[in-house]
Order: sequence, then structure tokens, then C-alpha cells
Amino acid sequence: MTTNILILSVGTRNKIIQYFKHELKGKGKIIVTDSSELAPALYEADKHYIVPRITEPGYIETILEICTKEKITGILSLIDPELTLLAENYSKFTEIGVTPIISRADLVTMSFNKFEFNKFVQRLGFNSIKSYKELSKFYEDLDNNKISFPVFVKPITGSASINISKVKTKEQLEEMFERFDDLLIQELMDEKEYGVDVYIDLLSSEPVSLFIKEKLNMRAGETDKSISVRNEKLFNLVYDFVTKAGYRGIIDIDIFEKQGEFYISEVNPRFGGGYPHAFESGINVPLQIINNLQNHTNTPNLDYAPGIYMMKFNEVTIKRID
Amino acid sequence: MTTNILILSVGTRNKIIQYFKHELKGKGKIIVTDSSELAPALYEADKHYIVPRITEPGYIETILEICTKEKITGILSLIDPELTLLAENYSKFTEIGVTPIISRADLVTMSFNKFEFNKFVQRLGFNSIKSYKELSKFYEDLDNNKISFPVFVKPITGSASINISKVKTKEQLEEMFERFDDLLIQELMDEKEYGVDVYIDLLSSEPVSLFIKEKLNMRAGETDKSISVRNEKLFNLVYDFVTKAGYRGIIDIDIFEKQGEFYISEVNPRFGGGYPHAFESGINVPLQIINNLQNHTNTPNLDYAPGIYMMKFNEVTIKRID
Repeated sequence: MTTNILILSVGTRNKIIQYFKHELKGKGKIIVTDSSELAPALYEADKHYIVPRITEPGYIETILEICTKEKITGILSLIDPELTLLAENYSKFTEIGVTPIISRADLVTMSFNKFEFNKFVQRLGFNSIKSYKELSKFYEDLDNNKISFPVFVKPITGSASINISKVKTKEQLEEMFERFDDLLIQELMDEKEYGVDVYIDLLSSEPVSLFIKEKLNMRAGETDKSISVRNEKLFNLVYDFVTKAGYRGIIDIDIFEKQGEFYISEVNPRFGGGYPHAFESGINVPLQIINNLQNHTNTPNLDYAPGIYMMKFNEVTIKRID
Repeated sequence: MTTNILILSVGTRNKIIQYFKHELKGKGKIIVTDSSELAPALYEADKHYIVPRITEPGYIETILEICTKEKITGILSLIDPELTLLAENYSKFTEIGVTPIISRADLVTMSFNKFEFNKFVQRLGFNSIKSYKELSKFYEDLDNNKISFPVFVKPITGSASINISKVKTKEQLEEMFERFDDLLIQELMDEKEYGVDVYIDLLSSEPVSLFIKEKLNMRAGETDKSISVRNEKLFNLVYDFVTKAGYRGIIDIDIFEKQGEFYISEVNPRFGGGYPHAFESGINVPLQIINNLQNHTNTPNLDYAPGIYMMKFNEVTIKRID
């Protein structure tokens, strides 16, 4: 059986496409899309399509047509705004024999709302980061010494690091609340930060890949570096969380460590930007996805070496576009 | 004769090291340094050294020792703060048989002072961007309609895009001048921007590589993309400027276009961040450097195809560091 995979909105995620192409050799094709012909990852695939922006009417129909034409077996997206779309249209894909690699729509939507996600983490019985939507509740805890300045202020929804501010005074805080709606006040977490890549088998619903890396903060923050970590307490916590939460497919979890305790900060229900570190360490999620699409349950692949560094640098795609 | 090249402060410039390694095959070795073992480009070279930061006492002596030990023929640096150091210590290197690929110290220093550089461009008879160090002179031209808001305000010295602000009112401008010293007010240039890579032969003093690319501004500005350009007027202007200015070795020139006229904005007397576009288009500066170090004058290599796009993406280096 041929396994053809369609990856949407590939942008600059060349490595992900390279990995899939390598794993699909002899098994099927990797087809990709983007709205811009200047997305370099387009040119890594067996075939690519330039498609409308995801906000355009008829977008999902265009994707469904590509699925039919290219005999697609599985589909996934690499950008946040498209994950909800994919999850909400799940049955439109399964009806034509295509499996979306995505969690349930309600879980995806909740994952993009930092306040709701935080409550969810608490309900499941895990440490969560102290979070406030209302100034009054924050001031109450401030008076009772349950929290102190500085704090982080960020939009409740929206992508990770846009408009995140470290706020030091009531004046600054009130000024921000006057200017913007839907802000979240969060306890400052500035010790250690981990990124965890997890693949939850589509058939067995068990985590069959789990790779922990500590993010290393660099000057100017422009160069991404990380180190692979083996930590039994953190491993068990993530395994437990993922099993209880009900995600499926590939997810990327951000976790903070403060005074020896771990705090689950957010889940991106897609391949994280740091996934190449996991793949290069032997955690082969593309292969696990292909196995699932071929109706095979994966045996867990949870072994990797600690102390391995990943350092990003710029590679280039050179292309004449006619 | 063996040609061994030492490249300093390589950071994440893996591509540059790869190109040199490829061109040196059978001819000599590429040795590199950085102050951090998490600089991925270290691991592309034949050999690497972790060295003190360039501001540490004895730094230049450390580099000279490496030159002697490794029988280095030529040396260059990839970061701005080190260029002046290399230029000022030029004779210390030539005395031990090492050729620094760098322009004269006075030219290097001047290139990092945006006001002085601007006057230099004018003196040589080229269009320059209207620039003011003093509020009074700016206001004079503002009153005479020679310039209008918005303007760019940036530090006179210092790296390209740190703290550059678009300023729209007198109030904003005066607030900035109160808070910071050594600011420069410049006419807003927001039409087209070009990056030009030029290699000026160390023996003939002629430009023997000249590659023009238009920088393409992308959303969020985080992904670098450019397109190769052939434009006779711009080519002749750059050729003329470089010949008159007296730079040597590899330089990167930023040029703006406004209403059909070109304005030379700055020169970085080192490999620019976009050089891979030139190399991948056949403009082989590492080979020209090797030729020069072997005492051969280069024949000009000024031919390349226009309309070729470069798109950057993240590659990763994986490394156990003991």
C-alpha cells in the first residue's frame, strides 16, 4: 500500500519535509503546500502546491481536492492557525480516506487559550503557573504575598512570544490593561525551560516517542540551542499528563522548572520548532506516523542519549521561480 | 605551497566555513575560533579553538600563537567588533607571514561611524542619505522642507539594526535625544534595499567579484529572502565607489533605491550575512581569497544569473560536547 502524506503551510520547515521524504522512500510521496512561492520548504518535497491563504473562502475545499487528486493517506499542518481548521474539518478528511494527524478540536482550541489551558492542567492534578485574567484577583494575591512583581503579561490567545512583557509595577500593569483586552498575568518563570516532543500513537493512544530538551537562552535570543535531557521525574510527569489529557499525534510541550518543581506552560499540537533535535537523536516521529497510516501500532521508542547539544544555523535554498 | 586559513568568531556562519573547506580541499586547512563551544560553525572546520572573548587582555597574542602553531597563511573575522582589532594589528600578522583579509584600519573604523561614513560617501561624489547629528540642523532643514517626518533615528556607531526607530514627531525625537547620546537622524529610505557582495583583489586592488541582490522584506522580518539583480547603473556605481574608496578583501555594501536614485548606506568590511546567495550563484570569493594568498591575481568573475531567489531556513548541528 502506498502512503502519501500532505503537509500544509510548510514555510521554512525544510527539515521536517526532508525527514518525511527520507522515511517515505519506496513507500509513498510527500506533497506540500504554502501560500507563498518563497517558502523554501516547498522545494524539498516530491511535489508542491501554491494554495490560497487559510483565511480565504474555499480553502479547505482546495485542500480536499489535492487530497483526492494525489491519493493522500495522511495530512498535517505546521502552523498554529491551521490546526483548529484541520481539527474542525476532521470528518471531511476521514470521509475521503485521509487521516488528519491532529488532536480533537476542543483540545486544540483550548490549547491556544492560555487561561483555559492553565485551568485544564490544574484539573488534571498538575502544577500550573499562577495566572490571572482580572486585576482584582491579582491584587488580592499580591496583598496576600501569594505572588509578587515582576510578572509576565501576555495575550490570552495568540502565538507564544508575541507581545510578552515583563511587568514590574502596578502602574505599568494598569497601563497595559487600559490599552489591550484579553491579557493574562502570569507568575514569572525564569529558571529553566524545557521543550518536550511527544508522539501519541493514533491506534494505541499511548505516547510512543518522548524527547526532553532544555532550551538554552542565548544572547539576543536569536540562535536556538538546546541540550537533550533525561530526567525520570519530568519524563513520568509528561507521560502521565499526555495520557490523561487525551492529545493524539505529534505535540510539543513547554515546561518550566522552578525550585525543583515542573510547571506545564503550554502545548502546541503540532511539530515544534525544536523537533529536529529529537529526530537527529533517533526519535523518528515521521516513521511512527507512516506506521500508523499503514495501520500498524508503534512500539514505544523512548530511548535517546542525554547531553547532546543542538545548535541552529542558516541554510539556504536557491531557486529560480518562473 | 599549503594554504591554511584561520577564521575568527565563526558563530553560526556554518556556510562560510563549508565553502572555504570545500575550496581548500587538497590545498590546505580551514581552522576556526569562537569564544563559545556552542558556536555550531566550529564543527564544520578541519580544526577549531575555543578562545577568550575579543575584549580579554592577551586575546590578539592567543590568535598570533594559533597562527604560528597552525602555519596560517591568511586570517579573517566574521564579526564587526573584531574587524578594527584585526586591521589595527595588521603588521603583527604580516610579520609572521600571515595576511589579514581586511581593509585599512582608518577605513574600517570610519565604516562603523554612520555620520563619518556618510560624509565620506559625499566627498567621493556619490548620493548619500541626508543625516543629522544635531537637532538644530535637522530643524533648519525641516523648516526649509528639505526633509520631513517620519525619519530614522539610530546610534551613530553600533551594529546595523539595534535600536533603530522610525520617528514621527518632534516630541518623540526630543525624547530620544534626551535619553541617548550619539544619535543620528536619517532620511527615511523605504523603497528598495540592496545588498552587494564585493571582493577587491588584494594584489590588483580591483573588484573581481560583484554580486547584487535585492533584499525582500518579509512578514515579521524573520525569514531572510533575496533575489539576484543585474542592473548596469547600480553595478557601475558600486564598481566606481569601491575603486575610489580603497577597500580591500571582502566587503558587503547596503544600498537604498529611492525614486530611481541609489544611495550608499553602509559598508561592512567582512562577509555579509547574505553572502551564501552570491556563492551559490557562482561568485566564489573563498577561491579568490585562496588565489590571492597563493600570490595569484584573480581575473574578474562578475557574471551571474539575475532572478534567482535565496530563501533561508534553519539547519541544525548536533554535537556531544565533553
